[in-house]
Amino acid sequence: MANSTDIDFQTMDPDPRPRDECGLFGIFDHPEAAQLTYFGLYALQHRGQESTGIAVAGDQEILAHKGMGLVSDVYDMPHLDQLGGGSAVGHVRYSTTGSSILTNAQPFVVHHKHRSYAVAHNGNLVNAHSLKDELEEAGSIFQTTMDSEVILHLLVKNLHYGFERSLLATVARLKGAFSFILLTSQGEVIGIKDPCGFRPLCLGKLNDTYVLASETCALDLVQAKFVRELDPGEIVIISKNGVKSLKTQAAPTRSFCIFEFIYFARPDSTFFGQNVYLARKANGRRLAREAPVDADLVMPFPDSGSYAAVGYSQESGIPYEMGMIRNHYVGRTFIQPTQSMRDFSVRVKLNPVKELLKGKDIIIIEDSIIRGTTAKSRVKTLRDLGVKRVHMRVSGPAHRFPCHYGIDFSTRGELIAANKSIKEMTDFLGLDSLHYLSIEGLLESTGIKDPENNFCRACFDGSYPVEFDASVTRNCMDT
Amino acid sequence: MANSTDIDFQTMDPDPRPRDECGLFGIFDHPEAAQLTYFGLYALQHRGQESTGIAVAGDQEILAHKGMGLVSDVYDMPHLDQLGGGSAVGHVRYSTTGSSILTNAQPFVVHHKHRSYAVAHNGNLVNAHSLKDELEEAGSIFQTTMDSEVILHLLVKNLHYGFERSLLATVARLKGAFSFILLTSQGEVIGIKDPCGFRPLCLGKLNDTYVLASETCALDLVQAKFVRELDPGEIVIISKNGVKSLKTQAAPTRSFCIFEFIYFARPDSTFFGQNVYLARKANGRRLAREAPVDADLVMPFPDSGSYAAVGYSQESGIPYEMGMIRNHYVGRTFIQPTQSMRDFSVRVKLNPVKELLKGKDIIIIEDSIIRGTTAKSRVKTLRDLGVKRVHMRVSGPAHRFPCHYGIDFSTRGELIAANKSIKEMTDFLGLDSLHYLSIEGLLESTGIKDPENNFCRACFDGSYPVEFDASVTRNCMDT
Amino acid sequence: MANSTDIDFQTMDPDPRPRDECGLFGIFDHPEAAQLTYFGLYALQHRGQESTGIAVAGDQEILAHKGMGLVSDVYDMPHLDQLGGGSAVGHVRYSTTGSSILTNAQPFVVHHKHRSYAVAHNGNLVNAHSLKDELEEAGSIFQTTMDSEVILHLLVKNLHYGFERSLLATVARLKGAFSFILLTSQGEVIGIKDPCGFRPLCLGKLNDTYVLASETCALDLVQAKFVRELDPGEIVIISKNGVKSLKTQAAPTRSFCIFEFIYFARPDSTFFGQNVYLARKANGRRLAREAPVDADLVMPFPDSGSYAAVGYSQESGIPYEMGMIRNHYVGRTFIQPTQSMRDFSVRVKLNPVKELLKGKDIIIIEDSIIRGTTAKSRVKTLRDLGVKRVHMRVSGPAHRFPCHYGIDFSTRGELIAANKSIKEMTDFLGLDSLHYLSIEGLLESTGIKDPENNFCRACFDGSYPVEFDASVTRNCMDT
Amino acid sequence: MANSTDIDFQTMDPDPRPRDECGLFGIFDHPEAAQLTYFGLYALQHRGQESTGIAVAGDQEILAHKGMGLVSDVYDMPHLDQLGGGSAVGHVRYSTTGSSILTNAQPFVVHHKHRSYAVAHNGNLVNAHSLKDELEEAGSIFQTTMDSEVILHLLVKNLHYGFERSLLATVARLKGAFSFILLTSQGEVIGIKDPCGFRPLCLGKLNDTYVLASETCALDLVQAKFVRELDPGEIVIISKNGVKSLKTQAAPTRSFCIFEFIYFARPDSTFFGQNVYLARKANGRRLAREAPVDADLVMPFPDSGSYAAVGYSQESGIPYEMGMIRNHYVGRTFIQPTQSMRDFSVRVKLNPVKELLKGKDIIIIEDSIIRGTTAKSRVKTLRDLGVKRVHMRVSGPAHRFPCHYGIDFSTRGELIAANKSIKEMTDFLGLDSLHYLSIEGLLESTGIKDPENNFCRACFDGSYPVEFDASVTRNCMDT
Repeated sequence: MANSTDIDFQTMDPDPRPRDECGLFGIFDHPEAAQLTYFGLYALQHRGQESTGIAVAGDQEILAHKGMGLVSDVYDMPHLDQLGGGSAVGHVRYSTTGSSILTNAQPFVVHHKHRSYAVAHNGNLVNAHSLKDELEEAGSIFQTTMDSEVILHLLVKNLHYGFERSLLATVARLKGAFSFILLTSQGEVIGIKDPCGFRPLCLGKLNDTYVLASETCALDLVQAKFVRELDPGEIVIISKNGVKSLKTQAAPTRSFCIFEFIYFARPDSTFFGQNVYLARKANGRRLAREAPVDADLVMPFPDSGSYAAVGYSQESGIPYEMGMIRNHYVGRTFIQPTQSMRDFSVRVKLNPVKELLKGKDIIIIEDSIIRGTTAKSRVKTLRDLGVKRVHMRVSGPAHRFPCHYGIDFSTRGELIAANKSIKEMTDFLGLDSLHYLSIEGLLESTGIKDPENNFCRACFDGSYPVEFDASVTRNCMDT
Repeated sequence: MANSTDIDFQTMDPDPRPRDECGLFGIFDHPEAAQLTYFGLYALQHRGQESTGIAVAGDQEILAHKGMGLVSDVYDMPHLDQLGGGSAVGHVRYSTTGSSILTNAQPFVVHHKHRSYAVAHNGNLVNAHSLKDELEEAGSIFQTTMDSEVILHLLVKNLHYGFERSLLATVARLKGAFSFILLTSQGEVIGIKDPCGFRPLCLGKLNDTYVLASETCALDLVQAKFVRELDPGEIVIISKNGVKSLKTQAAPTRSFCIFEFIYFARPDSTFFGQNVYLARKANGRRLAREAPVDADLVMPFPDSGSYAAVGYSQESGIPYEMGMIRNHYVGRTFIQPTQSMRDFSVRVKLNPVKELLKGKDIIIIEDSIIRGTTAKSRVKTLRDLGVKRVHMRVSGPAHRFPCHYGIDFSTRGELIAANKSIKEMTDFLGLDSLHYLSIEGLLESTGIKDPENNFCRACFDGSYPVEFDASVTRNCMDT
Repeated sequence: MANSTDIDFQTMDPDPRPRDECGLFGIFDHPEAAQLTYFGLYALQHRGQESTGIAVAGDQEILAHKGMGLVSDVYDMPHLDQLGGGSAVGHVRYSTTGSSILTNAQPFVVHHKHRSYAVAHNGNLVNAHSLKDELEEAGSIFQTTMDSEVILHLLVKNLHYGFERSLLATVARLKGAFSFILLTSQGEVIGIKDPCGFRPLCLGKLNDTYVLASETCALDLVQAKFVRELDPGEIVIISKNGVKSLKTQAAPTRSFCIFEFIYFARPDSTFFGQNVYLARKANGRRLAREAPVDADLVMPFPDSGSYAAVGYSQESGIPYEMGMIRNHYVGRTFIQPTQSMRDFSVRVKLNPVKELLKGKDIIIIEDSIIRGTTAKSRVKTLRDLGVKRVHMRVSGPAHRFPCHYGIDFSTRGELIAANKSIKEMTDFLGLDSLHYLSIEGLLESTGIKDPENNFCRACFDGSYPVEFDASVTRNCMDT
Repeated sequence: MANSTDIDFQTMDPDPRPRDECGLFGIFDHPEAAQLTYFGLYALQHRGQESTGIAVAGDQEILAHKGMGLVSDVYDMPHLDQLGGGSAVGHVRYSTTGSSILTNAQPFVVHHKHRSYAVAHNGNLVNAHSLKDELEEAGSIFQTTMDSEVILHLLVKNLHYGFERSLLATVARLKGAFSFILLTSQGEVIGIKDPCGFRPLCLGKLNDTYVLASETCALDLVQAKFVRELDPGEIVIISKNGVKSLKTQAAPTRSFCIFEFIYFARPDSTFFGQNVYLARKANGRRLAREAPVDADLVMPFPDSGSYAAVGYSQESGIPYEMGMIRNHYVGRTFIQPTQSMRDFSVRVKLNPVKELLKGKDIIIIEDSIIRGTTAKSRVKTLRDLGVKRVHMRVSGPAHRFPCHYGIDFSTRGELIAANKSIKEMTDFLGLDSLHYLSIEGLLESTGIKDPENNFCRACFDGSYPVEFDASVTRNCMDT
C-alpha cells in the first residue's frame, strides 16, 4: 500500500498529459473468455491504468472481478479460473484522483428481473445530468457518479418494448461521445457507438466467434482478425445467431477524436485503414515542411513525439537523436525528495546526454502542450547543460478549447495556448522558436479521405459537433 | 492473501456454529464520528467478521470505506482521517462464502437528487422477493443481491411525500426481521426496528450527542450511557432537533431472538434490563435442576458453554473445570494437514488436559448442537484419553426448525435434533446421557417478565411470528 | 504492513506481562518434516509471537524459511513444499522491539567446509560477551547480536576434534540458561540442555522417528508419544543410529524455571510428570488456605489467573465467576484512541459485567504483578462501576529480582514488589487487601518431589544458581 | 505476492539477456544519507532488479534495510527516516533464481569488536573458493554463499595491523573482478577497485562531501559533480580527513568490461570521458561501414540496439524506423497463456507495425545474441507478416566464451556463436544475412585511446586477463 508520506508522480507533475478514459474489450461465447479478455485488456493498458474489471456471463449469471491498478496486478490465475468461460466484457480506466474510486471501476453490473447486465463504457454523455434528473424523479437511485449508470437505467426502463427496441430507445436518448460494450446474463455481447463516432470500437473475428475492442492492437494480441470498425450510431449484437447490426440515426459527419492519431492510440493500431505510426510520422514530415529550421539534430522530448521526430528527421535530413534518457524503473509513487533537490520530478525520469547536446542547435518534437510547465522545466534543463539553440515543433495544432466528450484536458484557463500568443509562449518556455502543426496539416497527414468530415477537432478550433450543457465540463457527474 | 492451497477452518469444520448477521453502530454529529464508529464496531466484531464498512456524512456528502475482514485489518488511521467527522454509520457482517463479496459489504450508499443515503442492516426481509419484483417492474435496477437495497428503493420512491412519511411508508411495506440505521447526506441518523422487534438496537447518549448500537457493549467502549432499547416498530430520527420517535404499527407481541441470550450477544451486554452473562448462568442453574447427574466435574465444551457451566456447577456443587485447552493463536486459514493426522481440525484448536480427565465422570455443557459432527469428534477425543462417563447437557432447547429471519442455521435436513430422537443422538454422539434445557426453562432463566410474549423461539418449536415465503430461506436474495 | 500512525498494544500497555523467549521443535528424518515442524510450532506459538523459522536438512543442504509474525502468517503450503522432507528444526521467538529484527529470527544457519548447521535456541548465555570477545580476537565476525551465534562459532572451532567432542567442548564453554536444537546438513538432530536445566526440552517418539520439543503440548498435536525430559547437561544426538546421549557435567541441583508452571507453559503441558493445569489449580487452593478472605465471588483478572481462581474457589467454596469479558478480536495494532477516551488500552480488551459485580465483595486472582500499572487501572475500573471490596490474591510469590537467564522482566527499579511494601502496594493498587502465595506454597503445589532442589526461583529470592556478569541483564548482546 | 500459478517472464523467455550483477552507491556524512542513497540506487536500477539494500552508519552503529524487488517497492519514507543520516552505502542486485534469496541481498553487515562493517560488492572473485577453504580451516563460519562475505572475513583477520594495512592486505588476497564500497560504523566510506579495473566505480563531489557510484548517471540524479574514476587497484578512503587514496599493485593493463559500453550501462553515463550513447552510435556507424546492405529501413530489435541503429542509419542513409512497438505495461509476472496462443511471450511484449514493414527489406540491429531463440521467434514474426528480406547486424562481436568475472552469460554450450558458423546462424535465425561488428571496430568506436590495453574482451576472444579456477563459473559459491 502506498504510504501516506509517499507522493504520486501524477500529483507531483505540474503538467499532466492529456488522458483518455478507457479501453474496452468483449468476446462472445468462448471457453477461455476471461483469459482472452485479460489479454485484450493487457494490450489496451495504455488507455487507462487506474482500475480494471472483467465480467463474464456464464450459466445465466454474471460474475465480475475488479480492482485498482494495472491489469497485471489486479488479476491472477485463480480469478480468471473463477470467472471461467462464456461471454465476457473487460475495461481499463484512466487514473484519476478522488475518494471511493473502486466503486467507479467498470464493468458496471446490475440486476433486473432475474437477468443481469454489465456495461463497459468509453466516453462522456453531455446530457447525463438531465437524464439523471428525469430518472430520479421517477424513483431511480444511483450507486455511482458515473454516466455509465444512466445507460443501464434507460435500458431497463424500456425493456418492456423488447430488448432490441430498448437498445434503440436508449441510444436515442444519449447525447455525447460513447462507445460501450454491453453484456447480458444470457451471454449476448453488444457493441454500441454514438452517432458521431467519437470513440473507437471495432469488430474482430477469432476462429468461430467474434470480439470487440477499442483498438486493433488488442485483436493482434489475441490473434483475432480485424473485420471492421463500427459505424457511427451502429449497434452490433453478437449472439448465437451471429452478428446483427442495428442502425440508429447517425450524424451527418463522423467526428472521430483526432487525438487518437496524435497521442492516445498505440502506434501499432490502425483506424479506418490508416496506421497510427505512419500517421504520426507523416505529421512530422508535414511539420518539417511547414516549419523548417536549421539545427544539428532533432529529438523527441522524449517519448510521445518519437514517431513525429523520425518523420521530421527523414523530411529535413537533420539527424534524429535520442538526447534524453528515460529511467525505465520509475514507479508510480515516489519518496518525497529533499528540498534541495531542484526540479526533481523532471530529473528522476529523464537525464539528458550532455556529451551529445552541449553546444548544439536542437529541434525538439512534442505532440501537445497543455499547461507548459513541464516543457518549461525540460527546456531549462537543456539550457543549463549548454544547448545553444532550442527550437520546439509540435506535431499537432495548439490546444485552445476544452474537450466536453471525455478527454481530461485542463480547463480553458489552464490551457497555455488559449491564453498566450506564440511569441509569449516562446518566451515563457525559454525557446528560440516554436511552431505548431496546422489543422490542415494534421488532417491531411492522417491519410484519411475527406478528413474535414471525419474528425472532431473541437479542442483546436472550438467547433463542437454536439451541443453540451456548459455547466458540465468533466466526464463524471460529481454531484 | 490466502493462498489457494490453504484451507479455511470454516470449511474444514464439518459443524459450523450458528452465525448472526451483523452489528450496527451509528452516531450523530461528532467531530470524531468515524473514529468512534470504528471503536463501536470493534466492540461488535463478534457479530460479524466477513466485512465491515463505515460511512460518514459530512459537508453534504457521504464518504465510505469498506473492506473484507476484521475491523482491525480494514481500517487504518488515514482512512479514518479521510472519513473525518460529521454523522456516521458502521456495519460488521458475518462470514459467508460466495462470489463478489465486497459488493455486499455495508453500509450501502446510493445517490438520489443531489442527496445520498447510507444504510446498515441487520436482519432478513421475508418479502424482499415480491418487493423487488414490484420495483423492477417499475424500472428499478439492483446493484446487489442484498435485501438492504430494497429498503433504499422504497424510501426514495416515497420521498415526494416528505422524508418522515417516506420512512413510515417504507417500513409499512417491509416484512420480516430488520433493525437498520440510515444515514443521510444531511447528517440525520435514523434507527429503525421491525414491528416484532426481532433484532436488537438501542439508543445511547455520548455527552451532547446520541449513538445507536446493536448491543450495550459498544456503548460501554465509547463511554456512552445507555438510554433505552428501540421499541418494536419504532423509528428514531436523530437530528439537530434532538431525538424524535415515530411509531409504526407494532405486532401484538415482541419476538426478540432468544438466541441473542443463548449465544450471539457478548456476555457483558444487556437487553431489556437483563444481563446476558447472568441469563446464561441461570440457564446452567436451571439445567442442573432439570437434568441432574452425578459426576466428578462439569466443564464447557469448551468456550461458548462456559457461563452455563459455571451456573451448572454452582447449582449442583460439582466442581467447574476447564478440561480442554484452546490454542489462542489459531488463524483463520490453515495449511492442510497430512492424511495421517486424524481429527486434525478438532485437535489443532483444542487439547484436553489428560491428567485432569482420565478415568473421570464428566458433564460437558454445550449451548447448541447443529449437525453434531464436531461434538461427536470431541466426545471421541475424550473417550480416547480415558474419560469414563461423558454426559452432555445443552443450555438451550433442541433446534428443530430453520430460521427465516436471518440466522444462518443449517437447513432442517441438516439439523440433527430435527431428525433423531434423544436416544439416537446420545448414541450418535457417543454419550452416556444427553439432556436439553426446556423451552420453559430457557424463557424463565432470561429473567424477562412475561417471557412467553417477548421472544421468537421458532427455531425450537416452529411457531414463526411472521409469515414467510417458503421458497426464501436465506438472508440474501440469490437471484 | 502496520501503518506508522498505528500503535502497537505492547507499547501502549504500561505494564507488559513477563515474556518467555522461545519455543523449539525438531524432528529427525521424516518425509513431512517441514509440515510436522510447522504444526509443532503452532502448538508452541504462546512461547513467542515475534518471528518464526523452519530449517530443513535434506539432500546434504539446509533450506530455511523465516518471517516476522505468527506461524499461521509466515508459512504457506508452497513454503513447506519447498522445504520438503528430511530432518528439521523450528523456532518461535517472542515479541520485542528494535531494528532489523528479521535478522534475529531463528533458526540461525551457517556454512562451514561444505556442511551447514542450523541452531534454534531458548535461553540466555551469561558469558556470551566474554566468549564473543575471545572469538573476535581470533578473527570471527558476527552477523547478529544473538548469543546463539556464539554457540556455532565455538562448535566449528572445535570440529577438528570430531563432532561429538566438539559438542562437548562447546557446551563446556557456555554458562547460563540454554536449551537448543542443532541441525546438521547431514540430517542429525541434536538437543542440548544446560547443566542446570533452566529451560524445558523433551524427547518424543513419532512412529519410527524422534522429535524434540519445548513442551508436551507440541508432542500431542503431532501425535508423538512423550519419552522423557532431557536431563540437565544432557546432549541427545538423533541420527540414523537412533538416539545417543552424551552427558556433560551437570550442576548439583536442577534449576528449572518455576515460571513455566506459573505462567509460561500451556496448561495442557506436563513437566516432570506434573501437569501445569493441576499445578496452577493447586496454587489457587494453597492460596485460599494461606490467605483466606470472605467475599461474594472469586474471579480471574481476567485470563492468566483462571486456573488458580478455579482452585481458590474450590478450596474456599466462594463462587467462581468470569466478571471481565475479553474482546476476542483485539488485533495486534490499534488506531490511536482520542484523547478523551480514558483508560482505553484497558477497556478495549476487557469489559466488566456490571450487573454481576456491582455492590459485591470480590477476590481477583492474578499470577504476577510486575509494574502494577495495569492492575491499578483495572482495579479502578471495578471501583468505578460500584464493586464494594476488592481483594487481590497472587498465585505466585512477589517478584523482587530480575532474571538473568532470559526472561524479559523489567529491571529491578521497575518491579513494584522490589520497591514497595505489601501495605504500600495495597494502597497503590487501590485494593482492600493483597496477598502473595509463599515460595513454600508455590514449590509444594507444583507436586514435584524435593522441589527445593529442582527450581530456579531467583526472581523471588535473588538466589541465582549461575553467576552472571552484572553488566549483562538482557538476553541479547546489544553491542 | 506472485501467485504460484503465475509465471515469471524471465523463465518464460527462452533467451534471457546477459545480466550484470550490481550497482553501488555510497556517500560520506550527509544528514540525508539514506535518502540520497535511495536516489542514487534509483538511477542505477538498470544494473539489478532482484534485491536492494541500504546501510547507514550513524551514531557508531550500522542500520540496514533490505528487500526483494525494485528500489521503488522496497523502501518507503519511514524506512529512510529510520535509517537517517550519517554515511551510507547502497546496492542493487540482479534478478536470479534460487532459495533464500533475501539472505543474499547486500549490503552485507557484520559485527566485530564493537564495530560494524557493511560491504556492497559488484563483481566476482575467482579465488573465493580457496580463500573460503583457508578461512574455514581457521574456524570462520559463513552466513551466505556470497563471495562478498570472504572480503569481510579477510578484513577482520588483518585488523590487528591497523585498518589501512588491513585493507591493503585484504585486496592483495583477492583475485578476479571486484568493485566494492565498504562502510564502517565509524562512518568511513571506502571504495575499492580490483587491479584490472573490470567493474566501474567513480568518485563524485556533492557540496562539501563525496559520493561513490557505479555510473555517472547516479551522480547526475543527486546533482553531484563527477571527480574521477577510481584507478585499477585503487582504494579510496573517505573520512572526515577528506579523500585518501591507497594504491595496490595494479595489473599492467586495464581490463574494463567492454559490455558496459555495449549493453549494461545507461546511455547517459560516461566512462573515461567517453559517453555511452555516443559510443553505441559509433558502433552502429562502424557496423554500417563493415557490413553494408541495401534495404528500405533500419530498426532496433527493438530496444537495446536503438542507439546503434541510429548510428547505422546516419552512416548508411537508410531510414531509421521503430517497427516493433513495445507494450510499456508488461509486468514481471504473467498469467500463463492458453495453449493455442503461439509465441505468446514474444507477442505480449512486442507488436510489429504491419503497415510499415510488409513487403520491405529491413535491417534489424541487435547488440548481442546469446542463445538465439528469442531472435529466431522475432524474425519469424516479421516473416509471417510479410517482410521481404531480413538482415541482422549485431553491434558487438560474437559471444563465444563465458565470462568468469561475474556476467551471467549462458555456459559455452548455450552460446549459439560458440557452436554455429555465421552461415548456420543465418539459417537458424531465418535471416537473409547476418554480420557482427569486429572486435577492432568495437574497440575503436568506444573512442578510448589505446583501447587494446583498456578492455576485457574475453567473452569475444577467450583472452582472460585473470586466471580462474575452471570449476568456478558462476558468481556465487554454491556450496
